[in-house]
Amino acid sequence: MLINCVVYQDGSKLADIPISEISDYLDRPDTFVWVALQDATPAELEEMRQEFGLHELAVEDAQHGHQRPKIEEYGSSLFSVLHLVEPVPGDTSELHVGEVDIFTGSNYVLSVRNRSSISLLGVRARCEREPELLRHGSGFVLYALMDAIVDRYFPVIDSFETALETIERDIFTKGTARANIERLYELKGRVMVLKHAVAPLLEGASKLHGGRVPQICAGVQDYFRDVVDHLSRINALIDTMRDTIATAIQVNLAMATIEESEVTKRLAAWASIFAVWTAFAGVWGMNFEHMPELKWEYGYLIALSTILIACALLYWGFKRARWL
Amino acid sequence: MLINCVVYQDGSKLADIPISEISDYLDRPDTFVWVALQDATPAELEEMRQEFGLHELAVEDAQHGHQRPKIEEYGSSLFSVLHLVEPVPGDTSELHVGEVDIFTGSNYVLSVRNRSSISLLGVRARCEREPELLRHGSGFVLYALMDAIVDRYFPVIDSFETALETIERDIFTKGTARANIERLYELKGRVMVLKHAVAPLLEGASKLHGGRVPQICAGVQDYFRDVVDHLSRINALIDTMRDTIATAIQVNLAMATIEESEVTKRLAAWASIFAVWTAFAGVWGMNFEHMPELKWEYGYLIALSTILIACALLYWGFKRARWL
Amino acid sequence: MLINCVVYQDGSKLADIPISEISDYLDRPDTFVWVALQDATPAELEEMRQEFGLHELAVEDAQHGHQRPKIEEYGSSLFSVLHLVEPVPGDTSELHVGEVDIFTGSNYVLSVRNRSSISLLGVRARCEREPELLRHGSGFVLYALMDAIVDRYFPVIDSFETALETIERDIFTKGTARANIERLYELKGRVMVLKHAVAPLLEGASKLHGGRVPQICAGVQDYFRDVVDHLSRINALIDTMRDTIATAIQVNLAMATIEESEVTKRLAAWASIFAVWTAFAGVWGMNFEHMPELKWEYGYLIALSTILIACALLYWGFKRARWL
Amino acid sequence: MLINCVVYQDGSKLADIPISEISDYLDRPDTFVWVALQDATPAELEEMRQEFGLHELAVEDAQHGHQRPKIEEYGSSLFSVLHLVEPVPGDTSELHVGEVDIFTGSNYVLSVRNRSSISLLGVRARCEREPELLRHGSGFVLYALMDAIVDRYFPVIDSFETALETIERDIFTKGTARANIERLYELKGRVMVLKHAVAPLLEGASKLHGGRVPQICAGVQDYFRDVVDHLSRINALIDTMRDTIATAIQVNLAMATIEESEVTKRLAAWASIFAVWTAFAGVWGMNFEHMPELKWEYGYLIALSTILIACALLYWGFKRARWL
Amino acid sequence: MLINCVVYQDGSKLADIPISEISDYLDRPDTFVWVALQDATPAELEEMRQEFGLHELAVEDAQHGHQRPKIEEYGSSLFSVLHLVEPVPGDTSELHVGEVDIFTGSNYVLSVRNRSSISLLGVRARCEREPELLRHGSGFVLYALMDAIVDRYFPVIDSFETALETIERDIFTKGTARANIERLYELKGRVMVLKHAVAPLLEGASKLHGGRVPQICAGVQDYFRDVVDHLSRINALIDTMRDTIATAIQVNLAMATIEESEVTKRLAAWASIFAVWTAFAGVWGMNFEHMPELKWEYGYLIALSTILIACALLYWGFKRARWL
Repeated sequence: MLINCVVYQDGSKLADIPISEISDYLDRPDTFVWVALQDATPAELEEMRQEFGLHELAVEDAQHGHQRPKIEEYGSSLFSVLHLVEPVPGDTSELHVGEVDIFTGSNYVLSVRNRSSISLLGVRARCEREPELLRHGSGFVLYALMDAIVDRYFPVIDSFETALETIERDIFTKGTARANIERLYELKGRVMVLKHAVAPLLEGASKLHGGRVPQICAGVQDYFRDVVDHLSRINALIDTMRDTIATAIQVNLAMATIEESEVTKRLAAWASIFAVWTAFAGVWGMNFEHMPELKWEYGYLIALSTILIACALLYWGFKRARWL
Repeated sequence: MLINCVVYQDGSKLADIPISEISDYLDRPDTFVWVALQDATPAELEEMRQEFGLHELAVEDAQHGHQRPKIEEYGSSLFSVLHLVEPVPGDTSELHVGEVDIFTGSNYVLSVRNRSSISLLGVRARCEREPELLRHGSGFVLYALMDAIVDRYFPVIDSFETALETIERDIFTKGTARANIERLYELKGRVMVLKHAVAPLLEGASKLHGGRVPQICAGVQDYFRDVVDHLSRINALIDTMRDTIATAIQVNLAMATIEESEVTKRLAAWASIFAVWTAFAGVWGMNFEHMPELKWEYGYLIALSTILIACALLYWGFKRARWL
Repeated sequence: MLINCVVYQDGSKLADIPISEISDYLDRPDTFVWVALQDATPAELEEMRQEFGLHELAVEDAQHGHQRPKIEEYGSSLFSVLHLVEPVPGDTSELHVGEVDIFTGSNYVLSVRNRSSISLLGVRARCEREPELLRHGSGFVLYALMDAIVDRYFPVIDSFETALETIERDIFTKGTARANIERLYELKGRVMVLKHAVAPLLEGASKLHGGRVPQICAGVQDYFRDVVDHLSRINALIDTMRDTIATAIQVNLAMATIEESEVTKRLAAWASIFAVWTAFAGVWGMNFEHMPELKWEYGYLIALSTILIACALLYWGFKRARWL
Repeated sequence: MLINCVVYQDGSKLADIPISEISDYLDRPDTFVWVALQDATPAELEEMRQEFGLHELAVEDAQHGHQRPKIEEYGSSLFSVLHLVEPVPGDTSELHVGEVDIFTGSNYVLSVRNRSSISLLGVRARCEREPELLRHGSGFVLYALMDAIVDRYFPVIDSFETALETIERDIFTKGTARANIERLYELKGRVMVLKHAVAPLLEGASKLHGGRVPQICAGVQDYFRDVVDHLSRINALIDTMRDTIATAIQVNLAMATIEESEVTKRLAAWASIFAVWTAFAGVWGMNFEHMPELKWEYGYLIALSTILIACALLYWGFKRARWL
Repeated sequence: MLINCVVYQDGSKLADIPISEISDYLDRPDTFVWVALQDATPAELEEMRQEFGLHELAVEDAQHGHQRPKIEEYGSSLFSVLHLVEPVPGDTSELHVGEVDIFTGSNYVLSVRNRSSISLLGVRARCEREPELLRHGSGFVLYALMDAIVDRYFPVIDSFETALETIERDIFTKGTARANIERLYELKGRVMVLKHAVAPLLEGASKLHGGRVPQICAGVQDYFRDVVDHLSRINALIDTMRDTIATAIQVNLAMATIEESEVTKRLAAWASIFAVWTAFAGVWGMNFEHMPELKWEYGYLIALSTILIACALLYWGFKRARWL
């Protein structure tokens, strides 16, 4: 589905044009065409391939979808795949992953957004408000799109950190180990989804600044370094989070073991107390004929007191040893 | 066993030829011979060695079989080893590993398929339908074979992910820890088989695009980059899967510990209740002569009620503390 | 908030100047302006951007704050972000993280300190006392600031080591596993805060000595290598500490398991002793008519002695086996 | 101890010579001397040092023995240390490690075998049967020795895999955890011995093919790549094996925990059944005067039935819950 | 404290000189001064700084002490920091760490030994006995000092291996888990101390041979490679040891779990046996009037036999199931 198709000259919007006129503008100097598609059909992609002379393999990738993020050079043009990661409304345990494929040549940008409700119209609006930057050409548009998509990762990682902190508050609370581990395991799954969006993109984007850089990006290297810096930050946070989750699972396992140990201690303490009680009662329940204490008037009282005092002493001892 | 032996010129099939005529075609420009063998005998390999002038070490490797995947340059020719990984019919816990050895020179391709039922005839058919691509020569045939083999890895990794998701559904179900861990351990074994097929190939194939590239592959670099991209994707999925399996085993261990802790709590709770019961009964079972309550008319009833009420209170207390 | 704004010539302070006069001094040879701001407002940053011609992206980063540490080149100028890590007074379990953004050009240094009570005035005083070093220009000021900030990391890591040693003293003490693990987990969190301050800075600062070095730092490379060396030391200590914490958690888990095992053994030993007692008492509590020992005069005494001797033997046996 | 000392010219054996004549042949073109020593004395090594002009540090290393595998260049000559790893007859839990030191110059090869019963005579015999290969000179002899030694690693790693598979068959069998872990720990020790032989050699040998290569090896690079490929394969197998052993130990730990959990459940179940039995018996063992059921004719029978039915119901319930 | 101060020319000792004459010899060709200090005061260091023109930062590092090992170039001179690691007499659980700072210029060597009782006089004596090596100049002295210090690491790592083997002998002995883990944890601490001495030095020393090498070391590269080889060996041993310690701790944890499981089984078995005993005794202790067996003459004998046979059968059953 075509979203829009616009020609820009010297950083300013020239005109909305129909697709068929694209080729008229491709040879003009300081001019570029910016086409945005959404959930493009094979026919639309084929049309684009012919208009812009896209490489067959890149078009195939865009058609198949479900690519890993990457930035590939085909001659002097770039093919970029980015993931759009967004929470699923009403389900905190799931992440929806969409995809944006961006074809960038020296005089065109074609973005194809797939399986995502995140609109990129704001990027175009912002670019048009800053003609002095848009004058950098198609490379700047690629940057602006990447920057907008990467910026969407921050609220996602923030939500992870909130979730992790919530779990960490419970981590040393007794009886929560099972629930904590469930939540940590599920959180780790979501963290890995973001990792798959970020890590390969970081690797690809690093080639757009510094040493040998594709011609398209040469003038806007500093901007791409800024994106790479954001991606590095997210990536470092993800790695710390994975490490923390692993430690937290281990700590919860330790907590469960310690809790069991405490339960066993209490079990042992009470078992001892009742064993003493039963042992005394058992002795005086024996049927020997010559058991003088059974005949004493206060025998029963003394017996009961002996039992209770013995048990109380044990209780006090266990209390002191912190077994109870 | 010879599958077929065909000469191609300018991307189109020229003729099926007997092996003895191969040398007649090797010096023609824009012409290459594509030979496919299956489970080749040493004699057949020796014949090929003489026809194409293959390097002795490469032929030895092909004869021995059971090589790790690799791509090696011998002068201007390439020797590639790839693994064919396929599920064993009727046994989900096993993977069958076959091997394809590909000798590629500037004017020939020789593929030898060993110990595998996966046919590669489809690759030849597809190549012949696209003469404009086949015109790239033997390098393109190497790409087509690699691409076909790597594409076979995707259903395998998909089956792993299905298996993992099935296990994950049970991971927090009580009493399943043993079975889960068995399944995870077995899944990890299969994942490692695929890892052994993918990781060394990824390493080898990375040298076929980018910097200095063997002459044969120079014109089809973009295609090899596509294969490398697929391999990277599979490799990243495998690594994530190994990580997830390790975490899942750890989580199951934690679940078993927690479950034990819960059983111990219930054991402790019931032990306490019956200990109280037995303690009271023991007291009134003692044989003291002066135990007035034994003579009361409702003594027995009161005793029973006392016991039951004490036990009920304990039960209610444990219920509240979630030990029962 | 402006802290101060001073012009230096040939390593000596020339004059305190108002911001509006900065541009008058920027073209003089061997002269540089050193401005220090604290918690700068957007308006102040905008003013600085115009005075010094700072790059828009760097200013944006300084405005947003909460950047990861980094050192970025914008043309011939440098933009550095460093973290100030300080303990929170009265709360040993928290670390406060402030930020210093430093813009360095060939003839100016602008430092912006955010969210931190650590004053950097001492750096300026020390620099002014050593004019022969300050003569190196703005690069030396950058070094002096970095050095002062990195020096602040040492007491932090020292406090970590003290904390770790305190925990290690308890690690093999019975009954401390839960508290130890809590303290280790919390310590690990603080270590990671310092790691986030140190690791990216180490990476960035490494580019300021050795191979290709920004023009500003060329004359003071040895000094930057010294900072890098300090950062490497801290980083190595952090990595060792993380490793030790992980091992310590594992050891505590093992201790908890072993402790449980010891409790179970004691439970089992006492249970056996009382079971023997109760078994004997049970036998002589049976109501058979023909139990001759019940009629013996010393039957009761013999019975009691038998029970006590049996229990004593058991006790002695368990004691010997170290179960009690 | 001198094994043999032979001169080769153009790939063919010229003559067995005494050591004293070595220097007569060292200057002839296309000629090299191949000396083999076993458990050489310092005097023999000193003699060799003078004959061939070996570097003092290399000779020292050969004298000390117990070096890590390595390949070092001294001027235009190479000093290689390789480990010979062989099973100890009659003791599957031990590996014997011998050492071969090889000095290779453009016109000589000196191999010194230490502390090992593995003979390398077969290498010389095979080389002499293939004069067209031996014509490559001393570099080929170095390859032939390395290849023979590395080939000996394969049966060792095969024996590890057999051992691991044997353990894996038991891994989910109840009651085998202790023995499994002992066997895994011991296997890991042996794996590390092989790792120490393989990993440094892989690193050293990698420098003998590809980029800048010592003059001696230049003509036989493809052969060294073959050795490196074998070493890579072994190294990858070792790494997988270490990973599998670690997982298997973890799985066995989990199995032990699960088994304990199952024992605890059975204990709890039986404890409950007998507690019910004892509770009933305790009630009817009380000495109240007014317990009407004690006087009923069928009281005893009813009591016994009640007890047995209660216990049977419990038994059935636990059976259903899979606790028994 | 000055140990000695000697001038060497062409590899031979020329004279012991007072510090004040050092400058007289620094300009002579093929001559170098070798000064050794111990626990130098700031004044002594300042004097040396002036005599040799040392870099201020290097002197500062030497004054502060407690540096991590490193090798830094200051212009054409080198500043090296090495750790002296020695066992504390009478305390096997501690390691003493001293420090040697070595300043090396083309015509001088200054070594400062701090906080260590290990004398380096032997190095000087050995150098003076080999004038043909000492002729290499100050670079060779640096090598000789490094070699002597690194050689001291071998007995330390040997003592670690002995300690580890002692622990490993106990690892599968019942009841030793706690002590083993304590010893492993403490051993790991000592291993990390050596790691901190070795790893950074390995990194620094690697730059003294191979590619671009400081002028001072150019003639003695082979010697430095030998030191690097020793360091690599120690480093590899340390890494294996850390890995083994981690596995051993995990195995001990598993052993503790398994031991607990065995104790639980025995507890369960004995509990069952006594529960049966008590259950029977309880039945015949009931007070029903119509319990015919109570009146039988041999009732008591039959009852006792029944109980004992039941218990014996249980005992035999548990014995067979290896629970007892």
